[in-house]
Amino acid sequence: MQNAINLNADLGESFGAWNMGLDEALLQVIDSANIACGFHAGDPVVMRRTVRAAKAAGVEIGAHPSFPDLQGFGRRRMHLAPDELEAALLYQIAALDGMARTEETRVTHVKVHGALSNMACDDAALATVVAHAIRTYGQDLILLAPACSQLCLAGRAAGLRVVEEIFADRAYTDAGQLVPRSRPDAMIHGAAASLAHVEAMLQAGALISTSGKHIPTPIGSICVHGDGPDAVNTAAALKQALGERGYHLRGMAA
Amino acid sequence: MQNAINLNADLGESFGAWNMGLDEALLQVIDSANIACGFHAGDPVVMRRTVRAAKAAGVEIGAHPSFPDLQGFGRRRMHLAPDELEAALLYQIAALDGMARTEETRVTHVKVHGALSNMACDDAALATVVAHAIRTYGQDLILLAPACSQLCLAGRAAGLRVVEEIFADRAYTDAGQLVPRSRPDAMIHGAAASLAHVEAMLQAGALISTSGKHIPTPIGSICVHGDGPDAVNTAAALKQALGERGYHLRGMAA
Amino acid sequence: MQNAINLNADLGESFGAWNMGLDEALLQVIDSANIACGFHAGDPVVMRRTVRAAKAAGVEIGAHPSFPDLQGFGRRRMHLAPDELEAALLYQIAALDGMARTEETRVTHVKVHGALSNMACDDAALATVVAHAIRTYGQDLILLAPACSQLCLAGRAAGLRVVEEIFADRAYTDAGQLVPRSRPDAMIHGAAASLAHVEAMLQAGALISTSGKHIPTPIGSICVHGDGPDAVNTAAALKQALGERGYHLRGMAA
Amino acid sequence: MQNAINLNADLGESFGAWNMGLDEALLQVIDSANIACGFHAGDPVVMRRTVRAAKAAGVEIGAHPSFPDLQGFGRRRMHLAPDELEAALLYQIAALDGMARTEETRVTHVKVHGALSNMACDDAALATVVAHAIRTYGQDLILLAPACSQLCLAGRAAGLRVVEEIFADRAYTDAGQLVPRSRPDAMIHGAAASLAHVEAMLQAGALISTSGKHIPTPIGSICVHGDGPDAVNTAAALKQALGERGYHLRGMAA
Repeated sequence: MQNAINLNADLGESFGAWNMGLDEALLQVIDSANIACGFHAGDPVVMRRTVRAAKAAGVEIGAHPSFPDLQGFGRRRMHLAPDELEAALLYQIAALDGMARTEETRVTHVKVHGALSNMACDDAALATVVAHAIRTYGQDLILLAPACSQLCLAGRAAGLRVVEEIFADRAYTDAGQLVPRSRPDAMIHGAAASLAHVEAMLQAGALISTSGKHIPTPIGSICVHGDGPDAVNTAAALKQALGERGYHLRGMAA
Repeated sequence: MQNAINLNADLGESFGAWNMGLDEALLQVIDSANIACGFHAGDPVVMRRTVRAAKAAGVEIGAHPSFPDLQGFGRRRMHLAPDELEAALLYQIAALDGMARTEETRVTHVKVHGALSNMACDDAALATVVAHAIRTYGQDLILLAPACSQLCLAGRAAGLRVVEEIFADRAYTDAGQLVPRSRPDAMIHGAAASLAHVEAMLQAGALISTSGKHIPTPIGSICVHGDGPDAVNTAAALKQALGERGYHLRGMAA
Repeated sequence: MQNAINLNADLGESFGAWNMGLDEALLQVIDSANIACGFHAGDPVVMRRTVRAAKAAGVEIGAHPSFPDLQGFGRRRMHLAPDELEAALLYQIAALDGMARTEETRVTHVKVHGALSNMACDDAALATVVAHAIRTYGQDLILLAPACSQLCLAGRAAGLRVVEEIFADRAYTDAGQLVPRSRPDAMIHGAAASLAHVEAMLQAGALISTSGKHIPTPIGSICVHGDGPDAVNTAAALKQALGERGYHLRGMAA
Repeated sequence: MQNAINLNADLGESFGAWNMGLDEALLQVIDSANIACGFHAGDPVVMRRTVRAAKAAGVEIGAHPSFPDLQGFGRRRMHLAPDELEAALLYQIAALDGMARTEETRVTHVKVHGALSNMACDDAALATVVAHAIRTYGQDLILLAPACSQLCLAGRAAGLRVVEEIFADRAYTDAGQLVPRSRPDAMIHGAAASLAHVEAMLQAGALISTSGKHIPTPIGSICVHGDGPDAVNTAAALKQALGERGYHLRGMAA
């Protein structure tokens, strides 16, 4: 039997007159799209267009909610009260899901964005708020979250189906966290290195840190990027190589 | 058999630290609440609180979408392309409806706000975009719109159920439009005058202009306000008087 | 010779259709107004109206900049990069000062708002960014900041004139910080208690904590509030009592 | 004696994580930069960076204020009350000018953006509000506005120095207005055609319409664009050709 795996990416991060990301190209590669919901990126027109394009490409639709911070692209840490965060998440998921339903499709997973994701990966209380909000919206929603994070634990505790993701182009610390972008060894460069990094982790069933430490974890998805032709080419090469090695690329909800 | 009528009001128009409207008091009076969706007023916390309060009071929930203009409270005319307007309406209705569903209730009607409503009442093309957006979200949604407007016509043409509203405190021109607020005779002052104005129109089955002209129309709802104790008292007096005269006050979707 | 003292308050915190604060009444009491600059409250119309009213009342004008967070009223902690924060502060101070200059007056002090103030009072690095931004805008600007804070230290280190403020209605910890609002003893209630609290600190030349500890500090201003008739009455009573006790109430820049 | 002329372009229209325009390249070509002020584009970081880059390149700094509409990039018509528009313009000009002054330079001209410009070119009352706001900020500010527009007339009537601009890549109607973008002949394509178009109008001292009609006007500046390598190359070719034909390219305030 084939091993199933999934490629996911953040999409719909244009806003108004400003374009970002090669969404059309990336939709030919990925299985699951995390679509911005208007708080860090995306606007109703972009959201609708992205939902339609994802559906047309046969790509699963997920909500990619964020802190309310367009200027900071959701990358600045903010401290919201639990009820503020829960309501903000419900609002964003509902907006995208409702728009998806008008296209006769729907949101099947949620992946939180940027600083909110980083904070919820480390902070169990915040992770619980996030998981609870998602479950409140829909108990059949899948939580897509970084492997070995508090967010995965909180999602399972909330009764959600959780899919752990790894990053094709990011190195890990011995604690199973992403090496901060400020460090020179944070990024994995090039398709060959990304593929080797990903394949080693898939085979080990573990995150592999820069020092070689293995941190065992289920791995259900691989996050790729579309922020330039190189990124899309790397994603496409990863897809092809995984297929050749016998992995079955497919949606998470399938 | 009793004549059915409905009282509606705009609710949830607080934002962040700023309060507006006596929502709790008004919920004891009205049958249907038009809840702001975050574009001219309301934020996710306010929306959730208002949905819960409306449900607890047994009041129907409607979406009250607007142009994206917090500073102008949706009262400034804007010119959006049809696809922009349609997406903006879907986003707002979906956000509120999704939040309502997490409270085990749902949006049953839509009333557009402010400048968007004024423009769509006069402009058939714009009215068609609005009606189409509402129908796209849900063919069972009720369009609540000012009597004798292009918006009512467009709603019916789109296959929506339309409920015509009159305003308890606003005078009408011979063309069936609201007398502009800039004119001294724009407003009907006091509970007694409002009641007389409303009852005359209900009995006539027509708008009655300041010159006494009758413009026949179905009348399904009466819009009242909660922007101060006087407004709430007037609404309550209107409710009581209508009940005493044999009108049956109830939800539109009931 | 009389002891000089100053009453300051936050003004211009209305936004669009939403009113906040009894600005007109408070302007009859205070010496210095900290005017919101559009990021947590205030909009260009409110700012202009408030500048005109302050000038007409003979009240000094200060900028009251904030994190960019209307929904959270600037009360939610955010983490901006130093260049982001510096630029945001320059933008806000410049906008208000330029508008003041068109009214033939100008900004003479800066008091940062909400979460940014709280964070800069505790975090020396952040305080340095704030102080540097203010000094970059104008080396003659006065920094109005909570007594015994890192922000005061950073302001002096940056070469700014610093005026220390105390709060008429807030209790202090032994560390010289405000008792958190979550504690039952956070607030000083009523005009009499406020006056006694303030006068004791002025006479001691020190903050006085809830346990009676004295933390010596210069005190140049007292922060009062206008968020209701009681608050304005307390401020007015404080003003009168201080005058009767021989204090000379005046602007900081005078 | 040489004929003086000026090249101007809109700059600083990035926002947060989204980039727009080849500002650095364009600064090597133009004499005057119209810098976005945060309402349709630009944020404080972008504004500061653009001011610094313009100063370093020896390019004049102008404010490029707009309607408050990030999502619509200021291209959607809005209807603001005169006091709202005046305050919004003062706020934006003041913010940019204050930031410029911290870099030891200043705003010397104002060119309004997008839909606001289009509306003020046709509507004398709106043009008067715009001109009055600019004059209120500074009576020495230059108003840069489309030739043959109501805005030019209103600027002169307000006592402002007005510089008329023509567009290197846009065709004109017999009424002296830009051919709407919806028409196939709206744009002048390519450097050669742009140069011929511009040079003919400069020599004629008139706008030249698509039908060949001449509408006499002073011409003080030519608007070029930086929205792609082709646009910058066209601007650079125009600059070189004008220099070879004996035109002296320089700032408007010089």
